[in-house]
Amino acid sequence: MLRFDLLHTEGHARRGRLTLNHGVVETPIFMPVGTYGTVKGVMPASLEAMGAQIILGNTFHLWLRPGLDVLRQFGGLHRFENWQRPILTDSGGFQVWSLGAMRKISEEGVKFASPVNGDKLFLTPETSMQIQTVLNSDIVMQFDECTPYETSGHLTTEQEARASMELSLRWAARCKTEFARLENPNALFGIVQGGMFEPLRQASLDALVAMDFPGYAIGGVSVGEPKDEMLRIMAHTPHRLPAHKPRYLMGVGTPEDLVEGVTQGVDLFDCVMPTRNARNGHLFTRHGDLRLRNARYKTDERPIDESCTCTACNGFSRAYLHHLDRCGEMLGPMLTSIHNLHYFLNLMREVREALDAGRFEAFRAQFRADRARGV
Amino acid sequence: MLRFDLLHTEGHARRGRLTLNHGVVETPIFMPVGTYGTVKGVMPASLEAMGAQIILGNTFHLWLRPGLDVLRQFGGLHRFENWQRPILTDSGGFQVWSLGAMRKISEEGVKFASPVNGDKLFLTPETSMQIQTVLNSDIVMQFDECTPYETSGHLTTEQEARASMELSLRWAARCKTEFARLENPNALFGIVQGGMFEPLRQASLDALVAMDFPGYAIGGVSVGEPKDEMLRIMAHTPHRLPAHKPRYLMGVGTPEDLVEGVTQGVDLFDCVMPTRNARNGHLFTRHGDLRLRNARYKTDERPIDESCTCTACNGFSRAYLHHLDRCGEMLGPMLTSIHNLHYFLNLMREVREALDAGRFEAFRAQFRADRARGV
Ligand SMILES: [Zn+2]
Ligand SMILES: [Zn+2]
Repeated sequence: MLRFDLLHTEGHARRGRLTLNHGVVETPIFMPVGTYGTVKGVMPASLEAMGAQIILGNTFHLWLRPGLDVLRQFGGLHRFENWQRPILTDSGGFQVWSLGAMRKISEEGVKFASPVNGDKLFLTPETSMQIQTVLNSDIVMQFDECTPYETSGHLTTEQEARASMELSLRWAARCKTEFARLENPNALFGIVQGGMFEPLRQASLDALVAMDFPGYAIGGVSVGEPKDEMLRIMAHTPHRLPAHKPRYLMGVGTPEDLVEGVTQGVDLFDCVMPTRNARNGHLFTRHGDLRLRNARYKTDERPIDESCTCTACNGFSRAYLHHLDRCGEMLGPMLTSIHNLHYFLNLMREVREALDAGRFEAFRAQFRADRARGV
Repeated sequence: MLRFDLLHTEGHARRGRLTLNHGVVETPIFMPVGTYGTVKGVMPASLEAMGAQIILGNTFHLWLRPGLDVLRQFGGLHRFENWQRPILTDSGGFQVWSLGAMRKISEEGVKFASPVNGDKLFLTPETSMQIQTVLNSDIVMQFDECTPYETSGHLTTEQEARASMELSLRWAARCKTEFARLENPNALFGIVQGGMFEPLRQASLDALVAMDFPGYAIGGVSVGEPKDEMLRIMAHTPHRLPAHKPRYLMGVGTPEDLVEGVTQGVDLFDCVMPTRNARNGHLFTRHGDLRLRNARYKTDERPIDESCTCTACNGFSRAYLHHLDRCGEMLGPMLTSIHNLHYFLNLMREVREALDAGRFEAFRAQFRADRARGV
């Protein structure tokens, strides 16, 4: 099931409430990424404590490890990874596309060799639906082809982007048929493609809307294009989608990108940035980004962010976190991952509160000024 | 300060209460090891939740990183690592001894090159006391020479063990003088050496008791000797130490070793085994050890130990933990480290309860039978 209530709007920005089989999600929201059935370095209880409402799983990775036999035995991903709130799974399309020369795309699907054991595998719209049905994720993504921005220096042409987008549309229809045949009780999202070309984005959107999905994603952004190209697509597509259905911008992005996305009418975001950057000592704060490996933090007794209420900022100094990073101690990424995720989730909570109060534009100006101040 | 109350005895086994500057420690107790100012992969709050009462820090490592300037600025190790209960620090003697050919031992102390940056360093009884005073650990260990069991296949002779033990005694006297000069408000322990030779152990013990330390450790065990040799020394030394002072068996050991140590009159234990083994998928349970990497656990829905109340056993299956290990996911060692430490701490809690109830001998028989059953 999926129910989406639109509570308030301010310009294109929206405050909504998404009801799924495993619970309610207040939007706009950021979704932490748990590729292999775990948000890297973070306990499920910590995710709950920091206000995570929905997390991601990667179909491609989970299909390879632990495999469908194990996940079927556990009745899906929720019990296996000890997370009882909603889960969204991607389709595997982006991952097989990322394999580059190791995969072969045809009308039927994508043939590739398993990066785990070399097995020959074949992922199609139908198998993607079958796997996601076993995972029992609350939101299932259609299998699509992610249109690249460039390939070995060659910019994708409009003709190439059109062919790719049209293939994704035919796959969308096959996904819808298979999803219905499987009697999957969850919600299937269509994905708008079309590269950096607004007319193609519009054509993709129109065709998908005609198919009447319960929600829509914007794919093929954050795939190596310059920032202004991403902002151009972000400004084009979200608000053209049906108002009473949730909108998910895939793989985006920085705190600034998230606030910009909300401004353009996006409801759901996901990105590996908070956890990946945390492991590299790149921390997000209200007053800009902090590079923990800088020698100036060796003796800094302050928390990462004095306005943050997370576990890391409650008892641990920059000096201690700098030390843990230098020694390669696991507690370092454990604490910084919590902080970065908490920062993203808290940012979206502040966005929701601003929308509830009808002062999102003022919030956005303050957010930009705060972030520009510097740590 | 140090105050030790002996509450009950049963044979050589003792139930005690140790009061230190940062709080009370109920004995017998196991002390988790936090080499670089962090028990690897475990939050301080998790340690508290699982009943850790006192943890270790390594003087040698902390001297090199973060260094004394940082630790002095934080007023010691407690605030730096966000742990407000008691801390014991070793003297650095074992670590410099472990450097092998890279160090040179003289009457004055040990010269060596820093494994971090190659700096020439000199650790003496006096510098060890100075460093541990900066760390402000509740229990300070004397600087000693750890007598090896063998060196490149050559078994340490009685003459060599005597010379080494006598050097440690002279260093003990220098430590006591320096500790007093520094007006360190904590407690300094002497360390009994003497290799595998009971007469040397007795001589070391007699000389240290004459110096009147507030507590005593048994060093130079668990250094590569056969198990029966270790048990022989464990049966000799602990109960010969002053009854009204705490006794610490250094670097020991397996669950069976701990219960045997208690039987012989030991109060304090430390070992890296719970955390190190956890990272290698070697888990301790009431019914024996479990090797998580065994393929049989791929589909095992049970927790690690059905009688365990830890975070890992409360919601996570063997199958999930097996999967995390296989994928190299951080959450794997995070959960297994919590379980193994919880197992060791809970074992000691059960030991204390048995001693309180005057049924330690019965407990010990049940413990052995349970562990022999197999998982
Ligand atoms: Zn924080
Ligand atoms: Zn457990």
